[in-house]
Amino acid sequence: MEQLKQRIQEEGKIRGTNEILKVDSFLNHQIDVAFLAQIGQAFRDRFDGCQVDRILTIEASGIGIACLAAQAFGNVPVVFAKKNRTKNIAGDVFISQVESFTQSKRPYNIFVSKEFLKPGEKVLLIDDFLANGSALSALIDIVRQAGAQVVGAGIVIEKAFQPGGQRIREQGVRVESLARIQEMSEETGVQFCE
Amino acid sequence: MEQLKQRIQEEGKIRGTNEILKVDSFLNHQIDVAFLAQIGQAFRDRFDGCQVDRILTIEASGIGIACLAAQAFGNVPVVFAKKNRTKNIAGDVFISQVESFTQSKRPYNIFVSKEFLKPGEKVLLIDDFLANGSALSALIDIVRQAGAQVVGAGIVIEKAFQPGGQRIREQGVRVESLARIQEMSEETGVQFCE
Repeated sequence: MEQLKQRIQEEGKIRGTNEILKVDSFLNHQIDVAFLAQIGQAFRDRFDGCQVDRILTIEASGIGIACLAAQAFGNVPVVFAKKNRTKNIAGDVFISQVESFTQSKRPYNIFVSKEFLKPGEKVLLIDDFLANGSALSALIDIVRQAGAQVVGAGIVIEKAFQPGGQRIREQGVRVESLARIQEMSEETGVQFCE
Repeated sequence: MEQLKQRIQEEGKIRGTNEILKVDSFLNHQIDVAFLAQIGQAFRDRFDGCQVDRILTIEASGIGIACLAAQAFGNVPVVFAKKNRTKNIAGDVFISQVESFTQSKRPYNIFVSKEFLKPGEKVLLIDDFLANGSALSALIDIVRQAGAQVVGAGIVIEKAFQPGGQRIREQGVRVESLARIQEMSEETGVQFCE
């Protein structure tokens, strides 16, 4: 998606080499709602002809993207996996663990109420970033626990220099990333995959 | 908002008396995007004639509501306060503490990057629930730290039997709640304020 690449080039803040990319000005902290609607439409175009009954994402940054994408998919219901099992999620939940690849973070569980994922449903996964693929793998696991079917994953930005995308595609899951970063550094900026 | 009250009556799950109300089927876990667009329009009607430059909310449940409301306000930018100061929020941030009124939860800080709140801006606050008002008070504090102006707060569900709404209105902040609950119990269901 050309306009997304431009905004990453212009507004993205890089730290280190192949480490941190901040896109807080339109995606992760401040949200440009009109632009997210275009992103939603781009996902619709990528998954043209696919039946999508439901969108599943993970809190927090995925929620806005998923809601705007849902409009492009005919207002299908959105469900967001929760990171804390609050008293507001009681009873029967699907649980999966998100591994962590950084020393500073521990693995954590995510939760989806069994009420909101049904056997046979065709589920599109949406998330902001794909790097090591640990959050996406946990979402896929939850869809499978439910007996539902993963249509694919719509990702805004894939760090293609990290192994998540390849690992998940090798499982047979279709991954559509609107911008795939080959490498990035403070000195040379962002290079996208062809 | 009549349709909201109906959905609370039909889909809300109550535990205890004046304790927990779950509206996970359309607001807090599964999201009904078309209904959220109506909620956004209802906020626009309540704040008719008011200039709104920006919507500020708090992760996670506020994000979807704020994004859909932003569309009704001409696609103004949304900013969501973060509960964890990640490496993705570096440098200059406004910080405010959210008090906790339950023994099981500790107070926590919320963060908004100074880049995304500017002096003089007219800011509409959006959140799903208003009970003790601690999250909303922290958002108001952050807007004031920025030298920006609170237009008001658009709340989906106010637990009017808790003191937050009154406390915040007494500060001179306009609070518009689409459903105000007078009392609720497992036995008698939900009674709304007149």
